[in-house]
Amino acid sequence: MSRFWTTTVSDLTPYVPGEQPASQSLLKLNTNEHALPPSEAVMTAIRACQAEQLRRYPDPTAKGLREAIAQTESLTTDQVFVGNGSDEVLAHIWLSLLADRPVQTLDTTYGFYPVWAQLYHSTLTEVPVRADFSVDVDALMASEHAVVLANPNAPTGLALTCQEIERLLAGNPNRLHIIDEAYYGFGADTVAPLINQYDNLIVSRSLSKSHALAGLRVGYALAHRDLIEGLNRVKDSFNSYPLDAVAQAAAKVAICDASWQAQSVAVITESRSKMTEKLEALGFEVLPSSANFIFIQHRVLSGRTVFDGLRQQDILVRRWDKPRVENWLRITVGTLAQTNALLAACAALCAAEEA
Amino acid sequence: MSRFWTTTVSDLTPYVPGEQPASQSLLKLNTNEHALPPSEAVMTAIRACQAEQLRRYPDPTAKGLREAIAQTESLTTDQVFVGNGSDEVLAHIWLSLLADRPVQTLDTTYGFYPVWAQLYHSTLTEVPVRADFSVDVDALMASEHAVVLANPNAPTGLALTCQEIERLLAGNPNRLHIIDEAYYGFGADTVAPLINQYDNLIVSRSLSKSHALAGLRVGYALAHRDLIEGLNRVKDSFNSYPLDAVAQAAAKVAICDASWQAQSVAVITESRSKMTEKLEALGFEVLPSSANFIFIQHRVLSGRTVFDGLRQQDILVRRWDKPRVENWLRITVGTLAQTNALLAACAALCAAEEA
Repeated sequence: MSRFWTTTVSDLTPYVPGEQPASQSLLKLNTNEHALPPSEAVMTAIRACQAEQLRRYPDPTAKGLREAIAQTESLTTDQVFVGNGSDEVLAHIWLSLLADRPVQTLDTTYGFYPVWAQLYHSTLTEVPVRADFSVDVDALMASEHAVVLANPNAPTGLALTCQEIERLLAGNPNRLHIIDEAYYGFGADTVAPLINQYDNLIVSRSLSKSHALAGLRVGYALAHRDLIEGLNRVKDSFNSYPLDAVAQAAAKVAICDASWQAQSVAVITESRSKMTEKLEALGFEVLPSSANFIFIQHRVLSGRTVFDGLRQQDILVRRWDKPRVENWLRITVGTLAQTNALLAACAALCAAEEA
Repeated sequence: MSRFWTTTVSDLTPYVPGEQPASQSLLKLNTNEHALPPSEAVMTAIRACQAEQLRRYPDPTAKGLREAIAQTESLTTDQVFVGNGSDEVLAHIWLSLLADRPVQTLDTTYGFYPVWAQLYHSTLTEVPVRADFSVDVDALMASEHAVVLANPNAPTGLALTCQEIERLLAGNPNRLHIIDEAYYGFGADTVAPLINQYDNLIVSRSLSKSHALAGLRVGYALAHRDLIEGLNRVKDSFNSYPLDAVAQAAAKVAICDASWQAQSVAVITESRSKMTEKLEALGFEVLPSSANFIFIQHRVLSGRTVFDGLRQQDILVRRWDKPRVENWLRITVGTLAQTNALLAACAALCAAEEA
């Protein structure tokens, strides 16, 4: 605490990201990194980086990357905004479109939303998800306040269909909808194709999960160009050059490598199916996930017991000490080998508790 | 303009960075990139980047980089904050320590300060520099409001001594001082050694100029740990991972390469001396610069005339259409070969105008 802090800073409760342990012996299934290494083409692009690209300022508009994203999504370049991870993109969305305004989100969702609400002085209403963690669209429809939804939702992995989200968009053209598709690419619908039809929609995306590039910090937003212009106004009043030259070049290559994405999603889907089936057989309830993680609770053992039991076997998963989810664990979908290790550890844990 | 924009966004006048032309044939002396390529050790570090570093989230605290900076500055790691370029660092300083408060800066300085003041609702007093562009420290002393100073100042290149800044710090322990040392490393004093003595001081730095890494986007702040804690609170409420894995690794190597810095500053100093001497002989007034740029005006020709005349000869420099500086040009110090090209172009221009 310093006498120079502003009231905003003193009042903040910062977000706490998942642990990034230095130990390499730990099986790290707590922060939803992609199970596979990124595309080899990305590594080649990084190794090809020239001294002159580092000496000069990067393109402040990241035009080449935005063009690649626009082409992939069948949108125009002025419908694309890029930033230093989707967290920065969402922070700029919050300041440009939600600051000092009432906002709705869910009571069980990404823990950063209440932090941005605090930082930018939004009054946040946390609409409860149902007992089965599904989203109550009617409850969101009942208010005219802007809606922030992760789809698929985190930490549940449950996804709304495109039609369900369109019901929200069409229900009130003056209600703004931020759809956080951080976990896009693992089976959920995307609402990106609705952007030409609805100017009350912003989709945010991340390359951290879908492209195995958590270490590169690249995210983007897709929306009507007037909303994108608002984001650019904030960006150009905050930091003109959020994406370094290496990240711009590597991200562009990643976006264009459709074959890596198709192959890698097949691995995740297969691993997720196996995890689901085998964990259910071990007495776990597993929510149907459209993401690269699953959300589980054991029918007998507490969340704390399972968390600690896995940690003792060098497996790190994620758990929150919060009322509705304290007995649930979020576990990243690993490779098939990692899934086998997780399943063996869970089996050992269940057997020990039964004994 | 969108009906969803907040008032803050509608009211903003974003910063406009210097032109980044695509043409490689242009001699680009408009945005103060370092004249030399970065250290070869930096390129080696980038090429050594592994897929696993990209797959995983980077260290959100950038501990290794902060340790290297702390060691170089003889400070402790908790006195160091790092960010995505010094612009992001300054933006976080503004939100955590200056938002909604009165702030003083100079009327001739970095053009981003008024933009952050607008973004974070500070009332900005622009204290006039003297007719010779020197800073009137007494005028700043007369107010208790926080002070933001670029040292050396941009676009003038003039630097205050450590003693002059210490007079401000000691003059009022309850006045906060942000000293933006973006152009550190080219001959000006630094006030970083005063950090253990004054808790009302923050120094911000950039690797863009001093380390020839404008394309990498790394900046940092040095201050009492309570001020740094405030910056971390804002960072962790905005974007937990501002520095990607490649940037962290490369910046650490750059900070540790003292021999590159010593050699490169010698080149800049020699080139700057030659520019100054020869341009004065051509009828230019040249302010004594402690940065990697010079600020000049011709005793006869207008700033517009010289700017256009250089542009016609494929040389890009920086000029502002603003009252006190409209006849002045800011020119980046290039290599000796680039300086010779600039001097030849200026000589041709002056000869043509005399004819």
